[in-house]
Amino acid sequence: MVEHEDRLSRVFSALADPTRRDMVARLAAGDATVSELAAPYDVSLQAVSKHLKVLEDAGLVSRSRDAQRRPVHLDAEVFDLMTKWIERYRQQAEERYQRLDALLDRLQGRDNDESKDKGAAG
Amino acid sequence: MVEHEDRLSRVFSALADPTRRDMVARLAAGDATVSELAAPYDVSLQAVSKHLKVLEDAGLVSRSRDAQRRPVHLDAEVFDLMTKWIERYRQQAEERYQRLDALLDRLQGRDNDESKDKGAAG
Repeated sequence: MVEHEDRLSRVFSALADPTRRDMVARLAAGDATVSELAAPYDVSLQAVSKHLKVLEDAGLVSRSRDAQRRPVHLDAEVFDLMTKWIERYRQQAEERYQRLDALLDRLQGRDNDESKDKGAAG
Repeated sequence: MVEHEDRLSRVFSALADPTRRDMVARLAAGDATVSELAAPYDVSLQAVSKHLKVLEDAGLVSRSRDAQRRPVHLDAEVFDLMTKWIERYRQQAEERYQRLDALLDRLQGRDNDESKDKGAAG
């Protein structure tokens, strides 16, 4: 449980940075080397490597053992961990809103009935 | 664009903490006051208020103006911002895997045909 919690924290934390989200976006289109990933940014290879380390620790990317290129690969399955968490609570919140709406409709329906009764009586 | 980027960073960052995710989970079941939210944790009201401030800045929760109770309310629509981002890149990555699979199938099919041809020739 705690391990799972920590993993989720690491994934959310890794994606809380625009440069890292941008890297994930580019890796979704295809594997890339560190130099390829660094090209569009005005930062050092070292800074890019640090960002990759954070993504790697969160399980979002992995690197091939190919010693020459070591392309970075997106492990998109980790997204499931997040979407499951989000969907669970979004659904719960939505169901609650729907119940509230239904309750309001019923209350309003009763008010209408009461007005009608009053109208019939008067 | 930058504002949107920052918002997404704030949402991901806000959820990168297990206590804050726990608060969101409880608020999905219903509005709650700060003291109600603090009850299960071995932390000060002040610490809980700090967590709430982070969730509030990310647009995940809001507080009613009811001066007495000021219940905290989950604004679940913000989840959409995240799921849209996640889904976009997950889909892109999946489509790429599918194309790779199809390519492998075609290559394998060709290999089989070649083996068959060889078999027919031999």
